[in-house]
Amino acid sequence: MSKVPSHLEAPSRLLSSDNASGTHPLVMEALQQANTGHALAYGNDRFTHDAEVAFSELFGKDVVTRFAFGGTGANVMALANMLQPAEAVVCTSWSHIAVDEAGAPERFLGAKLIDIPSVDAKLRPSDLHSLSHLFGSEHHVQPRVVSITQATELGTLYTAKEVKDLCTAAHEMNMLVHMDGARICNATAALGATREALRSFTIDAGVDVLTFGGTKTGVMFGEAVIFFNTALAARSLYIRKQSTQLYSKMRFISVQYSAFLKDDLFIDLGVASNSAVQSLFDQVRGVQTLQLSTPPLVNSIYPVLNPDVSKALQDWSFFWDWDAATHQVRWMTAWDVDQSDIARFVAGLKSLLG
Amino acid sequence: MSKVPSHLEAPSRLLSSDNASGTHPLVMEALQQANTGHALAYGNDRFTHDAEVAFSELFGKDVVTRFAFGGTGANVMALANMLQPAEAVVCTSWSHIAVDEAGAPERFLGAKLIDIPSVDAKLRPSDLHSLSHLFGSEHHVQPRVVSITQATELGTLYTAKEVKDLCTAAHEMNMLVHMDGARICNATAALGATREALRSFTIDAGVDVLTFGGTKTGVMFGEAVIFFNTALAARSLYIRKQSTQLYSKMRFISVQYSAFLKDDLFIDLGVASNSAVQSLFDQVRGVQTLQLSTPPLVNSIYPVLNPDVSKALQDWSFFWDWDAATHQVRWMTAWDVDQSDIARFVAGLKSLLG
Amino acid sequence: MSKVPSHLEAPSRLLSSDNASGTHPLVMEALQQANTGHALAYGNDRFTHDAEVAFSELFGKDVVTRFAFGGTGANVMALANMLQPAEAVVCTSWSHIAVDEAGAPERFLGAKLIDIPSVDAKLRPSDLHSLSHLFGSEHHVQPRVVSITQATELGTLYTAKEVKDLCTAAHEMNMLVHMDGARICNATAALGATREALRSFTIDAGVDVLTFGGTKTGVMFGEAVIFFNTALAARSLYIRKQSTQLYSKMRFISVQYSAFLKDDLFIDLGVASNSAVQSLFDQVRGVQTLQLSTPPLVNSIYPVLNPDVSKALQDWSFFWDWDAATHQVRWMTAWDVDQSDIARFVAGLKSLLG
Amino acid sequence: MSKVPSHLEAPSRLLSSDNASGTHPLVMEALQQANTGHALAYGNDRFTHDAEVAFSELFGKDVVTRFAFGGTGANVMALANMLQPAEAVVCTSWSHIAVDEAGAPERFLGAKLIDIPSVDAKLRPSDLHSLSHLFGSEHHVQPRVVSITQATELGTLYTAKEVKDLCTAAHEMNMLVHMDGARICNATAALGATREALRSFTIDAGVDVLTFGGTKTGVMFGEAVIFFNTALAARSLYIRKQSTQLYSKMRFISVQYSAFLKDDLFIDLGVASNSAVQSLFDQVRGVQTLQLSTPPLVNSIYPVLNPDVSKALQDWSFFWDWDAATHQVRWMTAWDVDQSDIARFVAGLKSLLG
Repeated sequence: MSKVPSHLEAPSRLLSSDNASGTHPLVMEALQQANTGHALAYGNDRFTHDAEVAFSELFGKDVVTRFAFGGTGANVMALANMLQPAEAVVCTSWSHIAVDEAGAPERFLGAKLIDIPSVDAKLRPSDLHSLSHLFGSEHHVQPRVVSITQATELGTLYTAKEVKDLCTAAHEMNMLVHMDGARICNATAALGATREALRSFTIDAGVDVLTFGGTKTGVMFGEAVIFFNTALAARSLYIRKQSTQLYSKMRFISVQYSAFLKDDLFIDLGVASNSAVQSLFDQVRGVQTLQLSTPPLVNSIYPVLNPDVSKALQDWSFFWDWDAATHQVRWMTAWDVDQSDIARFVAGLKSLLG
Repeated sequence: MSKVPSHLEAPSRLLSSDNASGTHPLVMEALQQANTGHALAYGNDRFTHDAEVAFSELFGKDVVTRFAFGGTGANVMALANMLQPAEAVVCTSWSHIAVDEAGAPERFLGAKLIDIPSVDAKLRPSDLHSLSHLFGSEHHVQPRVVSITQATELGTLYTAKEVKDLCTAAHEMNMLVHMDGARICNATAALGATREALRSFTIDAGVDVLTFGGTKTGVMFGEAVIFFNTALAARSLYIRKQSTQLYSKMRFISVQYSAFLKDDLFIDLGVASNSAVQSLFDQVRGVQTLQLSTPPLVNSIYPVLNPDVSKALQDWSFFWDWDAATHQVRWMTAWDVDQSDIARFVAGLKSLLG
Repeated sequence: MSKVPSHLEAPSRLLSSDNASGTHPLVMEALQQANTGHALAYGNDRFTHDAEVAFSELFGKDVVTRFAFGGTGANVMALANMLQPAEAVVCTSWSHIAVDEAGAPERFLGAKLIDIPSVDAKLRPSDLHSLSHLFGSEHHVQPRVVSITQATELGTLYTAKEVKDLCTAAHEMNMLVHMDGARICNATAALGATREALRSFTIDAGVDVLTFGGTKTGVMFGEAVIFFNTALAARSLYIRKQSTQLYSKMRFISVQYSAFLKDDLFIDLGVASNSAVQSLFDQVRGVQTLQLSTPPLVNSIYPVLNPDVSKALQDWSFFWDWDAATHQVRWMTAWDVDQSDIARFVAGLKSLLG
Repeated sequence: MSKVPSHLEAPSRLLSSDNASGTHPLVMEALQQANTGHALAYGNDRFTHDAEVAFSELFGKDVVTRFAFGGTGANVMALANMLQPAEAVVCTSWSHIAVDEAGAPERFLGAKLIDIPSVDAKLRPSDLHSLSHLFGSEHHVQPRVVSITQATELGTLYTAKEVKDLCTAAHEMNMLVHMDGARICNATAALGATREALRSFTIDAGVDVLTFGGTKTGVMFGEAVIFFNTALAARSLYIRKQSTQLYSKMRFISVQYSAFLKDDLFIDLGVASNSAVQSLFDQVRGVQTLQLSTPPLVNSIYPVLNPDVSKALQDWSFFWDWDAATHQVRWMTAWDVDQSDIARFVAGLKSLLG
């Protein structure tokens, strides 16, 4: 039975998930500052006003911003604004809404998710075209929303052009586009690390509604649903409440996002997160048995690891198995993983690989 | 047009709602302390374990505790564990689930809420008996859950005996009892201000599932659903996720509740909140036109106010109208409203009443 | 123990419900005639085309007609075309959708039914006005559809003017009006017994969508949802299928309705049904203990009957209790109840009353 | 442009679908006979009692039978008795519930359908095993019901052993089995044409709940949901009403099924339907271009047809395209298609193929 030698110190932070990370100090500081006296409930406060303005500035347009508690709630709420009875959501079979939300979309929306197989967790215009036989038949659900994830659940990315082509195809078929941006900070970091880059694959590409996620990248809690297509937000206040996502003390979400957007902190944290896994990749890519051929695009890699080695490493510094059949595991970095964590992790790994 | 004289300083804190209050310093401190390094996501962390143990100690039994994001979500999630198809929830026509959740229960549960008129927002065994004709008829929904609010939406209270009698009646009719404890701290404070008091009107009275609310009383965010009837929690993990209430960085809810329960902080804050409105009541009860005959039981009073006076006072220190027809308004105190706030408010009021 | 003397023959037909009646011979004949060879499924057949034309002629306008299997399904399907998320249906606390559909509307629509108390099972403009405080608040469901029943569940009727006033009030409040016409034949018979009469309290009064019910009045099965407001029917084909109301062999519903509308058979059967109960009323109104002060408007009366007498009469010719507390029972006539049935029933009753 | 010569007479009955067929004379006769006098509504009548007894005799056990209006409603109703929140239905990507019910299951059940690709529209134990990673994770829906179709949507069949193996696998994984028997008469005919054969692949194989369909095979309207696992029927009466499937004049469904089961009429009609397509197959199998390699198992074949020929033939005697890409069409026979129809159809076909 393998074991990491006891003299090797485990990393201070895990490679298990970006969900294991904490709250960024500037966000925490903002929470402290907002915790002064009273503020009207449900978003009728200056903190929320400021954060909404900040999002409009970020996207260079008067968008409608609706804060939600969590990622699943934000996605469900977003989609509820976009669907009519007997309409369906098109996504990949890897998508979080299809696989990792315990059926929340089906339960709350009463809608089918048409999940299309995809090797890289990305949808293409041809996937939409393959559904054209469904339209107009009363027996079939009518595809109405295309939901894509950026960065995807497999750590891949859509280029701005790919999003644009998909949005064009969707709109031509009278469909709308939702983007699940649970890791949009990582995507932004990878695709240019500027506000212009973010706009290029969201608002400029034709996305209608975006779930802007901060919780995985330094925010304590709260996600933002951004309506670029503001007509879709007409009933969004009611739908937010009905989907259980209206937070009474809203200022404590809003103020986090003001801090998160200020001076592009959200991009910096995406860069930090991506860089950490890139550094890890650079240090272990030479280990043939890990089968790490392609560099990470965002913040995760999926090496192959002998189960015995994997178990020993997990006991020492936990991470998740990815595919039991192929012996793949997932190493994912958060915004707060630093060079010391990576160095320790690599040392532990190498001690086991001998 | 009336106006509060400019030399009078407005209260630092509002009487608009306990939702306008902030986070208690000890809770904020706990959040800071939990923000160290990494913790496994979704509650697989020591903070969550500790908070669950704290709830079991509070109630003197191994209860099942499931944290949720907010009050509406917690209620919906609780009820989803208790209902089968074609079953209904019995509540009053004042209840938060029936009136103030934008139809979230109907949408997520797919269930009817039978809302019974009640002058004091309380249900009685006779209300349950009045539904007995529904049972066994395939045309009618079958009442299954009795949902009561403690303290009620009208600021009234159930005594421990009243809850017990209602639970007994419900159980005899093969129904379950849910308690919406959005203001359970205020109720506990009013009914004895001890853990024993809390137990007397919850677990000891036969309540099956409790929504334990802290957000209105010093917690930043997060509510706890407590299953006294642990058999009902069998599928609660799945149902929490499906109802969008599973928080990835769970430690940041858990640690707040550990701080909230420690040394009975939650009771102290209920007492503080109740005391503030009692103090206000004592200082203005002599004003006949306010028609304040009965002292507050928890943290709100509903005086009658001339609209002109009301408007002037609201412009100076905002609060909500309650009943336009009767000119009643609501003054509600939070845990952080102090004697200085009350003194200033009374001064402003008296300046208008002349 | 009372008993109807054995020499008295029981009526051939019951006074239990119009649901106990059979299929009218002309409708049965139409079913036979349609049962020749093949017809394309799902309504792509000439029988359905003809029936749709017949409904447009009946209402003097190109209405959209969607057949459904049954009354509950027709109501749910109608409402599904009229509602958005977080919107609600306003009805009386006597309404079939609120009381007698086992929560089908809440389950399928995910919507709240706001059921307003009403002594005569009718809604008035003032009832709608009483809900005005709900509009625009994100915490409350938004009333969107007013659903009324004609004739009502208590055997009362709206005049054409009353419907019109209600529709006007509803439309002024940006609400739509649905009419549950499960007994629309009886209502038509009572309010003039002409097509003009029917139009006066439906399409001419401003009703948006009508459930036109034939099953209680001579049709074997199938109901028709009529969209006067044809814009609301835009997605009705998909919604019909999704609400499980699309019948594969549609011709067998359509052809019944063609027969039912031809030569105003539906009005004749409403007249027959109403007349039967009127005849019964005339023969027993003198019996003081029955407390039958007001003549029936459509096809039911609600006499007070000593339980012992009631039991004996029910054992001989079944009918339903109405209100156990007041000892009221319900006698309801169908289209096929004739003078001989009434005479026998009265004889049985009088034998028990002594 | 091809055209069937005008001297060739088109078949009296279509090969478009078994849904295009009419009502069998014996069923029609039963409807006539039941149309005498009154019967209590909602199934409290002797016709319904008799039909329920007939089903118990058919399956050799006291089953619970609940009649529904149509196939989609019957399936939805059946599944509603089998599912808890966050549970899912496993089916193939060809299944009627997944493809042809416009999302009724997702809307009414609020549940995900996990649709597994399958070349022959059949599920196998290995398909269930492939889902084992979902069990126990709070992020994933929990597979609970396996729904199979017999005969399948592709005209294939499960042998009794195959059903049994699947049921065993499902039960071992704590799942239940639902069978959609919309064409169960055809399946019974193909697998032995006896009651024993029917039992062998349903109740004896371990199926929990069966949708027994007659509408495609000679019944006018109405389907039967049969609970072999009677514990699952505990709340079935309420669920039937809530799912809009409770028929007021129930006798008119019941009496059809009594006639349908009597002297195994349902098997005879399945045999007739299957034989018709077999006869067609025998007469055209020699035409190489049709690519009809394997004989039909039930009542449909899927030849390849030049679009020009196809169009001409459809104009003359309509049938549906099956797969535009492969130029496959579907020829499906109903119980009433006779040798003369087949002979005419073949003549028309051959006139075009030259």
